Amino acid sequence: MAVLSKLTVNGDRLNASINRLAKIGRMPNGEICRLAFTPEILQARYLVQQWMVEAGMTVRTDAAGNLIGRYEGQIEEAPALATGSHIDTVPSGGKYDGVLGVLAGIEVVRSLRESKMRLKHPLEVIVFTDEENTMIGCQAMAGTAKQLPHEYKPKAAGSIEDCLEIIGGNWDELETARRTRADMAAFVELHVEQGAVLESAGKEIGVVQGVVGMLRKAISIQGQANHAGTTPMDMRQDALVAAAQIVLAVQEIALSMPSQPVATVGYLTVAPNAVNIVPGQVELTVDMRDLSQACLSEMLEQLQREIKTIATATDTQIELKPLLCVEPTLSALPVQSSIAQVAQELGLGHVAMPSRAGHDSLEIGRITDMGMIFVPSQNGLSHSGEEYTSPEQCTQGANVLLHTLLQLDEIY
Amino acid sequence: MAVLSKLTVNGDRLNASINRLAKIGRMPNGEICRLAFTPEILQARYLVQQWMVEAGMTVRTDAAGNLIGRYEGQIEEAPALATGSHIDTVPSGGKYDGVLGVLAGIEVVRSLRESKMRLKHPLEVIVFTDEENTMIGCQAMAGTAKQLPHEYKPKAAGSIEDCLEIIGGNWDELETARRTRADMAAFVELHVEQGAVLESAGKEIGVVQGVVGMLRKAISIQGQANHAGTTPMDMRQDALVAAAQIVLAVQEIALSMPSQPVATVGYLTVAPNAVNIVPGQVELTVDMRDLSQACLSEMLEQLQREIKTIATATDTQIELKPLLCVEPTLSALPVQSSIAQVAQELGLGHVAMPSRAGHDSLEIGRITDMGMIFVPSQNGLSHSGEEYTSPEQCTQGANVLLHTLLQLDEIY
Repeated sequence: MAVLSKLTVNGDRLNASINRLAKIGRMPNGEICRLAFTPEILQARYLVQQWMVEAGMTVRTDAAGNLIGRYEGQIEEAPALATGSHIDTVPSGGKYDGVLGVLAGIEVVRSLRESKMRLKHPLEVIVFTDEENTMIGCQAMAGTAKQLPHEYKPKAAGSIEDCLEIIGGNWDELETARRTRADMAAFVELHVEQGAVLESAGKEIGVVQGVVGMLRKAISIQGQANHAGTTPMDMRQDALVAAAQIVLAVQEIALSMPSQPVATVGYLTVAPNAVNIVPGQVELTVDMRDLSQACLSEMLEQLQREIKTIATATDTQIELKPLLCVEPTLSALPVQSSIAQVAQELGLGHVAMPSRAGHDSLEIGRITDMGMIFVPSQNGLSHSGEEYTSPEQCTQGANVLLHTLLQLDEIY
Repeated sequence: MAVLSKLTVNGDRLNASINRLAKIGRMPNGEICRLAFTPEILQARYLVQQWMVEAGMTVRTDAAGNLIGRYEGQIEEAPALATGSHIDTVPSGGKYDGVLGVLAGIEVVRSLRESKMRLKHPLEVIVFTDEENTMIGCQAMAGTAKQLPHEYKPKAAGSIEDCLEIIGGNWDELETARRTRADMAAFVELHVEQGAVLESAGKEIGVVQGVVGMLRKAISIQGQANHAGTTPMDMRQDALVAAAQIVLAVQEIALSMPSQPVATVGYLTVAPNAVNIVPGQVELTVDMRDLSQACLSEMLEQLQREIKTIATATDTQIELKPLLCVEPTLSALPVQSSIAQVAQELGLGHVAMPSRAGHDSLEIGRITDMGMIFVPSQNGLSHSGEEYTSPEQCTQGANVLLHTLLQLDEIY
């Protein structure tokens, strides 16, 4: 591998942009609320678009409302190299989630332009639509969008058709937003980790192996509500005892798999939920995530077996209903190794890790070579006003993004 | 033991009384709502009082609002034998809970009077005030009433002082309602089982060994809410995993005790309670019941030990707060054996069993010899419009009550 050029991004400028964008949608308590399709997101999109234009990009909006800045390359007909992320937030979000990837992409273009450099490939910086909720932007681009408008429930008022129109998209032409490997050679996303793995390991850079798949199930347990005094232990059909066994089974199944998946019962409600009544009904959810679809399937099979045993042992009826099934996407090996090599050359500690949160890359990785760069999240916090990644760490991430794109420009 | 006299109650008359009283407070869906201190209970008390007078009793109301009908005995200065129960219901109650004990008591007096019989002892039929909520009636009579009015929260509007006044009681003179063994030699209560033990065993009569004590605790588990994707299994402080271990520990502790206590986690709430967030906080309650205070204490100690282990294993903080502590009351052996002998002589199958629901007898047993007679509850249902005990079973219970009182009249 060639020694890296001395080129670096302007960290001060990057962090100033992050702080400027954070003013839009900031609430009195310091949290940021910039939901897709709202006046706040329109204001933020306008600002980012301005920055793209100032950095020498041409800007367009596709039918899914994705904002795409393009910095032309030396070879006009070459497929694009792309980067980007999102600028919408959860209702009580922070400054970095998504934003860092978009603004680091723009900063990379600014730096290239200042050095009067162009890649061979066109370089695109993409702001994906509504990553925090519907993910319609990356889905439309990957050709995985849902067929019917009512399958999307935007958090802003109105139908998805109305919402797309607000930001310059068009539901009826959604298909035109679709991209392929032929026009996008590779995609790299810089993002905050949203977990504490990097901080715990004392590493600056996470080389993401892929975005995990998700399997979510709703579980209904039907027992028999009864008097907590007059119902002997051996005559009970206690739905909460069954639920407790499921909660522990879910944990044990995850711990028993070699790939270190995660599995969570995050939601659980009891009925009638009174101190002196044996619980008659429990509803709960299971969320399982792993890089390997085979592992997810194996976990589900084990859970189904356990549930049968538990239903018999507790004299309850247990039903399992699908909530969500998202297949994992693996990062492309050339992108992973470029990121790792760049981090190495820049003297940054790095570690390979899965992304266990969903990202736009999850969908884009289905159509082209994908990779992700993680930087640390203080205390692992995210989706919170306390979300924090230091200016230095943001700059480190942007420099890894810059040099990774330079490497990929040689490879692809 | 002497052969029983041929005397029997008039079952048709008893069941007609039950059906007549059930019209008061009956809602369109067939459930009965006759809360203490409401117009419905006043109407019911008036009817019962009339029946008492018609049966030859003198009637008085004590300071706790207990309605006491007295059928004088042959020996004027003898302490009373007493029976009774309550006629207030839960908000969605049935026809039998409490009512059977009161109306069977009155039917016993009617039958004695028709046969021109008097016991040696005066015979009292007591309607206790607000058994389903405050239990102020039996507590005042046992001298266990709370000191301050605001410690009682009547379901009817107003303070306990106002409530007592409505039914002819007087908070300021509550102490005068107190009774002792010197004026009440024994107390027997006939009640529906409110469980399915008799039905399962195919027995007509339960000989109650005592009313169980209750130990209720609130448990707070503080973990750390976190992203269900990005938080590895070994970095979690999952409050729901801790709660699940507690739910199962509670069950195992109850099953391990030789006296067959019951223990229930009936209430459990999770926060933030979202499919994709590791639970940060769980609140739950534990309700433990047994005839032996030593067993309750041992169960609590075991639970406290388990909770320490669970807190360490799950990296959570677990706090245990007292909710309720009621000491058990054992039935007096002479009363128990009288009931069993009477059932035997009447050719009724009987079984000894604890009462795991609270009753007026719980308090009255603290001041005098107490016993309870149970009759079956169909499907174990109670506190429900579907509560059902057949007319034949009600009559059987009343006949056991009649002959038990005749026996006790010889013993005391």
